[in-house]
Amino acid sequence: MAIITLLSSHFIEVKAGDSKSTVAATNGTEKKLTFVLVHGSWADTSYFKEVASELRKQGNKVYIPEYAGHGSMKDMKNVTHEQITKSVVDYIKKKDLNNIVLVGHSFGGTVIAKVAEQVPDRINRLVFFNAFVPKDGESLYDQLPPPIQETFSQLAESSNGTIMLPFPLFRDAFANTANLEEAKVLYSKISPEPAGPLFQKLDLKKFYSLQIPKSYLNLTEDTANPQIPDYGWHPVQSSHLGFYRYIEGNGDHFSTVHADPKQIAKKLVKAGRP
Amino acid sequence: MAIITLLSSHFIEVKAGDSKSTVAATNGTEKKLTFVLVHGSWADTSYFKEVASELRKQGNKVYIPEYAGHGSMKDMKNVTHEQITKSVVDYIKKKDLNNIVLVGHSFGGTVIAKVAEQVPDRINRLVFFNAFVPKDGESLYDQLPPPIQETFSQLAESSNGTIMLPFPLFRDAFANTANLEEAKVLYSKISPEPAGPLFQKLDLKKFYSLQIPKSYLNLTEDTANPQIPDYGWHPVQSSHLGFYRYIEGNGDHFSTVHADPKQIAKKLVKAGRP
Amino acid sequence: MAIITLLSSHFIEVKAGDSKSTVAATNGTEKKLTFVLVHGSWADTSYFKEVASELRKQGNKVYIPEYAGHGSMKDMKNVTHEQITKSVVDYIKKKDLNNIVLVGHSFGGTVIAKVAEQVPDRINRLVFFNAFVPKDGESLYDQLPPPIQETFSQLAESSNGTIMLPFPLFRDAFANTANLEEAKVLYSKISPEPAGPLFQKLDLKKFYSLQIPKSYLNLTEDTANPQIPDYGWHPVQSSHLGFYRYIEGNGDHFSTVHADPKQIAKKLVKAGRP
Repeated sequence: MAIITLLSSHFIEVKAGDSKSTVAATNGTEKKLTFVLVHGSWADTSYFKEVASELRKQGNKVYIPEYAGHGSMKDMKNVTHEQITKSVVDYIKKKDLNNIVLVGHSFGGTVIAKVAEQVPDRINRLVFFNAFVPKDGESLYDQLPPPIQETFSQLAESSNGTIMLPFPLFRDAFANTANLEEAKVLYSKISPEPAGPLFQKLDLKKFYSLQIPKSYLNLTEDTANPQIPDYGWHPVQSSHLGFYRYIEGNGDHFSTVHADPKQIAKKLVKAGRP
Repeated sequence: MAIITLLSSHFIEVKAGDSKSTVAATNGTEKKLTFVLVHGSWADTSYFKEVASELRKQGNKVYIPEYAGHGSMKDMKNVTHEQITKSVVDYIKKKDLNNIVLVGHSFGGTVIAKVAEQVPDRINRLVFFNAFVPKDGESLYDQLPPPIQETFSQLAESSNGTIMLPFPLFRDAFANTANLEEAKVLYSKISPEPAGPLFQKLDLKKFYSLQIPKSYLNLTEDTANPQIPDYGWHPVQSSHLGFYRYIEGNGDHFSTVHADPKQIAKKLVKAGRP
Repeated sequence: MAIITLLSSHFIEVKAGDSKSTVAATNGTEKKLTFVLVHGSWADTSYFKEVASELRKQGNKVYIPEYAGHGSMKDMKNVTHEQITKSVVDYIKKKDLNNIVLVGHSFGGTVIAKVAEQVPDRINRLVFFNAFVPKDGESLYDQLPPPIQETFSQLAESSNGTIMLPFPLFRDAFANTANLEEAKVLYSKISPEPAGPLFQKLDLKKFYSLQIPKSYLNLTEDTANPQIPDYGWHPVQSSHLGFYRYIEGNGDHFSTVHADPKQIAKKLVKAGRP
């Protein structure tokens, strides 16, 4: 069974661990980590700007890859999930990053799953941060409750293969703990999201066979993926991971990283450390 | 589809919004709100006294209507849901209140749904605060898990159409985070609740067609509507609303408004603001 | 119906209560309680050491019984659930403890249920603290989701009727909010758990007929019993209790009692007081 296999292999590793480095690490401070932060839909690298700054203050290394169809590449509206994955894989290889804590937020969960298939040996832990975790053969779209599926289908049809969040949806489901002005400022920065990758069925067989440790970070007021019974982030998306470390925080999908980056940085360390 | 329709209409409204008032509102403080707070069963207007005081300190206007079968009208034991709704509608009309944040707590959720049908244009947002949200054609009673239904039926039969909460039920399910003395003081003030309106099937077709924005405020230790799987406030009652803004707090059903009114006021502003 | 019977009997008791002692108790401080704290699997009495110290600082009496197969009796690998129960019952009788708040953590939930059957008159309230609450005729094992059942069965088979938690399982599912060094220190103190009592089907008919008030204390990051849909502590295990007081806290299964004993002591008072 996968859990047993995973556990046994780690168990041996830990038994054989170097107890000196262990003692050093207890010396008052946390071991420093190397984070690669993969943002989600309707976002770009600025999503993690303040959180990265907090993480760096504590001595961690932080990388925020830009990926196809977003940021400076936002005009690539026909982008595929493979191209997005390639952006992140290339970034990691070019910078020769190792011992990574690879964090995926929202749609980014589907990206880090595919990235992990390509560079598993560079990754110490995967952190799914209110992220989608499709089962093998499923798409992000397949994770959504039927009324939201219908909304997304209609939004995609009405704007040539991109999805723009209507402001009221963004304000109440993505920035619910923010005030109106904060929500408007955040909204003014988002671009239509290429719909293709959200609807793409993903072969995740290799991902589900990998023995990389996983964590799930859940902000309890995040309702971007609505907490309708049998849907939602935790415990539905999270439980697709099988065995994982659970960390909980307060906040919503889009505003809390900016309003309370200290909390998010602290939670990411809890989720990402060995 | 209802969500799309709702979203589109709001989207347009926002796009056409006045950016000057927007800038003014960001100026350090929250926009001031007009709250109408509708209490639930076994309560009267004193339920919201401390919370109202906190909200007013921050410059908001707060109104707490008394309604049929409760408070000074508590001898009306054969009160109907229509009479209760009329009390609140009349209150709002008499005071000519507009741009209201209409809050319903517990049973009050069924009241604000029916009030909204009658004065939709006066309401900016509906806030369901650990409130029942019956589906069209259902009663509050229909939302309860079967063992609680049985308890309520028996309590109603044994006391001529009113339901008095036995103290142990009140203490552990309504005032669970309070100490015994606080629970006793709160209990000493409650009166038998007219059972009729709790069992009344409600025509909510119009309510479910309204495009008024909605929020759900959930205190996570509130077990007055027990969190048995497939029952409970959130995400079961809340998800009946379809699209809504979710706000979360700490506390129970009956004591936290008195013990921690600052928190509740803050959460009501988060739930009620535009 | 059980709930009604329970409620009615309490209601009478409360009505007949002594109002003078009531007033005294309100006098600024909480009534002092007598706690008996029953730890869970892979633990011994040191599990509750810091929490006990906090509870005693506030004037409460705290007893932590050692039980068969654990602590100084940890070599009894063929221990039965009956022997464990007897350890706790004997301890309570020998010390002639009364008006007890009997707390069971994790596996300890199954122990306090059986202890309550034998000394019901000595117990004021049962507190299930992230505890298993098997239905009549079920075992602790029966409460686990199938993948964890499989893991436990294999672990038990591979080590002669005891179950040792592999470190990665302990680290991520039992000490998820701790850092690695804290997790290692905690892990270094645990012993293989006798498997028998975890697989024993328990006759709980008498327990479910008892009218002792019950509370459930749930730390929301505790995933030792994974929060897979239809499984987990709350509301699944908790709802087996029928009517109970719900109290919520932050933390995980094994590290928070040591890292934040003040919080846990406070929550145990909230859960255990009358």
